[in-house]
Amino acid sequence: MQLGKIVGTVVSTQKDEKLTGLKFHVVKNVDFDGNPTSGFVVAVDSVGAGVGEVVLTAAGSSARQTDITKDKPVDAVIMAIVDTIEIDGENRYVK
Amino acid sequence: MQLGKIVGTVVSTQKDEKLTGLKFHVVKNVDFDGNPTSGFVVAVDSVGAGVGEVVLTAAGSSARQTDITKDKPVDAVIMAIVDTIEIDGENRYVK
Amino acid sequence: MQLGKIVGTVVSTQKDEKLTGLKFHVVKNVDFDGNPTSGFVVAVDSVGAGVGEVVLTAAGSSARQTDITKDKPVDAVIMAIVDTIEIDGENRYVK
Amino acid sequence: MQLGKIVGTVVSTQKDEKLTGLKFHVVKNVDFDGNPTSGFVVAVDSVGAGVGEVVLTAAGSSARQTDITKDKPVDAVIMAIVDTIEIDGENRYVK
Amino acid sequence: MQLGKIVGTVVSTQKDEKLTGLKFHVVKNVDFDGNPTSGFVVAVDSVGAGVGEVVLTAAGSSARQTDITKDKPVDAVIMAIVDTIEIDGENRYVK
Repeated sequence: MQLGKIVGTVVSTQKDEKLTGLKFHVVKNVDFDGNPTSGFVVAVDSVGAGVGEVVLTAAGSSARQTDITKDKPVDAVIMAIVDTIEIDGENRYVK
Repeated sequence: MQLGKIVGTVVSTQKDEKLTGLKFHVVKNVDFDGNPTSGFVVAVDSVGAGVGEVVLTAAGSSARQTDITKDKPVDAVIMAIVDTIEIDGENRYVK
Repeated sequence: MQLGKIVGTVVSTQKDEKLTGLKFHVVKNVDFDGNPTSGFVVAVDSVGAGVGEVVLTAAGSSARQTDITKDKPVDAVIMAIVDTIEIDGENRYVK
Repeated sequence: MQLGKIVGTVVSTQKDEKLTGLKFHVVKNVDFDGNPTSGFVVAVDSVGAGVGEVVLTAAGSSARQTDITKDKPVDAVIMAIVDTIEIDGENRYVK
Repeated sequence: MQLGKIVGTVVSTQKDEKLTGLKFHVVKNVDFDGNPTSGFVVAVDSVGAGVGEVVLTAAGSSARQTDITKDKPVDAVIMAIVDTIEIDGENRYVK
């Protein structure tokens, strides 16, 4: 999984019909402190995450293993909202 | 998913027979403003997208989850045309 | 899919038995003009492509969606020979 | 598989329900001596690994081939704890 | 597939039980002459390859399409030992 921060949203009306109702978030990569670095992915939200939250994303076929993404043309999903990132015994990020 | 802009088309007559009738678009990566950056992918169009449009692409096995790409040797699909990209509460791209 | 140019061939006699009879081509990445850039992949030919041709390759599980690669340990396949690459209304590559 | 060293842990309470009970470790890439380089992944532990250990991780659909990750939205798993890394006949890392 | 050279081995006793008996080789990327470049992967051997040999590796779900890797948490497999790499009509590597 990748650590990321939700910074925005992509809206689309003309899309594959299986995608109706899904929310597409823009997720920037973050470091252990939860600060954005370079790179981003657009991921479907499966956990009720919102802009500003640090999350975990799963990619590829694993992105289709949630109830709302099953069998859909989706290759990245937000499957967890991060509470803490602990590195070498220290809490580097706390929600 | 990746954000991209359709900049062109690849035509092929000698190809796997399952690919007959599919349209292959050249999709350049874009930033949050919809401006092309480096890198591109060739993706099958599943939503009637055309040159100049900003789109979302899904890669890998997820690219085969649309009606027209199912069970075909295709690893990237355009599955949505982007209306808006909103970052930090601001519309950075509007169709 | 990736755009590439076939520049050579890899020969192997000691290999997984499912791979018998498959042809492994060395495919360099190309730009929109069909000129090699950096990076290459070794891909199985499924369309009768030869050295010097510009082709499309599909990767991952999608590489196993052709008749000759099905259920085989192959992660890249040449599934189309490119006739033209048209960018912004201009033919940048013509076979 | 990738060689990595567990340097920390990610905790999440709001997540896909299939993920309950799984442990998410932060795994930094390492060189042949087991020393961290750049890049990291968050991976589910399937072998009882702990912080400080050098491990192997499998990514993509292969990450779902363990008993505890099967059919779950998980794209990286720790599937082995490394005892030794031998390069050119020399033990470069010993647990 | 990627071209690589086996430079070493990773030994693990504490691992997923499906992995018992598998051999994990360290495979460095190589150029067309078979000389190591940057980057490496740890791959399961399915063809009896040994240190010093130039090989092809398949990644992702394709790595599970050999008899010994089927349904196992393995994302890279050595599926062929390379005899020759011919580029532009010249043998750049001969075993």
